[in-house]
Amino acid sequence: MASEFDLIARYFTRAAPAGLLGVGDDCALFPVPPGEQVATSTDLLLEGRHFFPDVDPRALGHKALAVNLSDLAAMGARPIGCVLGLALPRLDEAWLAAFAQGFHDLAGLHGCPLIGGDTTRSAHDLAISVTVFGAVPAGQALRRDGAQAGDDIWVSGELGAADVAYRLLDGQYPADASLLAATRAALEWPQPQVALGLALRGIAHAAIDLSDGLLQDLGHILTASRVGASLEEARMPAAAALASLDEDKRRRAVLGGGDVYQLCFTAPTSKRDAVQAAASTAGARVTRIGQTLTQPGLAVRDANGQPLAALPAGFDHFPGPT
Amino acid sequence: MASEFDLIARYFTRAAPAGLLGVGDDCALFPVPPGEQVATSTDLLLEGRHFFPDVDPRALGHKALAVNLSDLAAMGARPIGCVLGLALPRLDEAWLAAFAQGFHDLAGLHGCPLIGGDTTRSAHDLAISVTVFGAVPAGQALRRDGAQAGDDIWVSGELGAADVAYRLLDGQYPADASLLAATRAALEWPQPQVALGLALRGIAHAAIDLSDGLLQDLGHILTASRVGASLEEARMPAAAALASLDEDKRRRAVLGGGDVYQLCFTAPTSKRDAVQAAASTAGARVTRIGQTLTQPGLAVRDANGQPLAALPAGFDHFPGPT
Repeated sequence: MASEFDLIARYFTRAAPAGLLGVGDDCALFPVPPGEQVATSTDLLLEGRHFFPDVDPRALGHKALAVNLSDLAAMGARPIGCVLGLALPRLDEAWLAAFAQGFHDLAGLHGCPLIGGDTTRSAHDLAISVTVFGAVPAGQALRRDGAQAGDDIWVSGELGAADVAYRLLDGQYPADASLLAATRAALEWPQPQVALGLALRGIAHAAIDLSDGLLQDLGHILTASRVGASLEEARMPAAAALASLDEDKRRRAVLGGGDVYQLCFTAPTSKRDAVQAAASTAGARVTRIGQTLTQPGLAVRDANGQPLAALPAGFDHFPGPT
Repeated sequence: MASEFDLIARYFTRAAPAGLLGVGDDCALFPVPPGEQVATSTDLLLEGRHFFPDVDPRALGHKALAVNLSDLAAMGARPIGCVLGLALPRLDEAWLAAFAQGFHDLAGLHGCPLIGGDTTRSAHDLAISVTVFGAVPAGQALRRDGAQAGDDIWVSGELGAADVAYRLLDGQYPADASLLAATRAALEWPQPQVALGLALRGIAHAAIDLSDGLLQDLGHILTASRVGASLEEARMPAAAALASLDEDKRRRAVLGGGDVYQLCFTAPTSKRDAVQAAASTAGARVTRIGQTLTQPGLAVRDANGQPLAALPAGFDHFPGPT
């Protein structure tokens, strides 16, 4: 039935690249190279829970895809395409055009075209579902369960800025315009580390993205791989903007802060040069922050080599109503 | 971070079949047979818009997957797996267990295991996103644009019951317990025609599922294939329960009623026996209801061969707030 929601679909309908059947049939179709597997991830994002209602819609379109591309990155998968479900409480064409722009810009950057979708009207909440598809040669996916005791532990990029921006916007920290200006892009415009994930195939033993914070996400690798870890706080690549914060806030942001969408991965010590070369190829910065151990558990050592007595819990941004 | 929503995930986490990496990593992984393409479809279902708030949760779990499997069926794709996003305004374990049961039962029936997902809390609405993946040999997908002038037009199953059940439950039709009892399963427990879609590969020229009603969905085939059609009302496989309705209501249900999830397809007249054999293999009933024509347009002829002066519009169930 023709409706205003047909209008919405137009913002998201672009010609599908050769070989892909895009929006306009019961299903989208895409080929997978021989010997490769499909990697897929899905996220359901809700206003108030995963983003602020007044967020820049272009940033929201970017981030809705970015968080899913980050999952492909963490598996070492090459993006193929994505589908989008969008439930809108009202029709706002300017909002929609900006959202679509942010989404398509990032999709274009990573060769991940929108090939299908579903738009509808919601009674209250804005809801966004994104499912991405990628390809990875069989046996080469960067899984969580491949870490071995004695591996180096690495992270890409910088840590902590998104957490600080979130707490400033949420009113948990006193207003600080310059601190917000220095941290906000990390929260609203995360850059998925797709190229780094691809470059780490055959080098990294295990990888994960830091959506829930370093300690919690590294914990998933340790549990799945049945190893422990020791991290050195002094090595952490904290965002420069965090220098003005007190130690507790900085620690909370760097070790516990979520919404980072950088990669944490382990690799054998024999591969240090290979890791640096892969990062260089991908245009990414990587930092070695500790090692995996045979004995279970996770310790963070301060500058004096003493384990921190208390570790910040993983922080669930936008915890929503309770 | 451990939360009550980890609990929710447990209802949906089952061991992934061999060859598939299921929930518990950044992405799910699945192989695709050489020479086959991936078919994918996504739907975002919202309380109040796509289902009544008091619907049986087991039926809802069934239908959330069924509407997506129906898209695979309409492409002639064999199901591989699916991912689920679930946003819940509150935690109700009995509700959740029943929803998961309905979902998993249908997934098991069609070999379409849940391999990934995302659960979260919503502020107001219950939202369900499902994305399915299937495989179809390259070039064998049943698309919308393959109909040729002179094809027979077929539908599977019966028409109209879901529309009547919806209007009874919505209060548009006066309460009628026996009519509701005879039509409700069609609305709440649609059976996707996956086996029929597979059996029609190489036989049907074009196919679509009837989520939006016969005339509207057949219209999509006609537009994409640049042909017209003439249908015979007397041939329509109306559900037996509709016999007690007046002509207008029956016509509206049969020609315009949505939520059917049967297949409408075209095939050359030379393939009538092959179509019947395919239906027999799939355990499905199929009915020949008309023919495609060179000249554009869509006419429905009554028992006297006269075109109906007015056709019911496609009906958008659960149109939501306006």
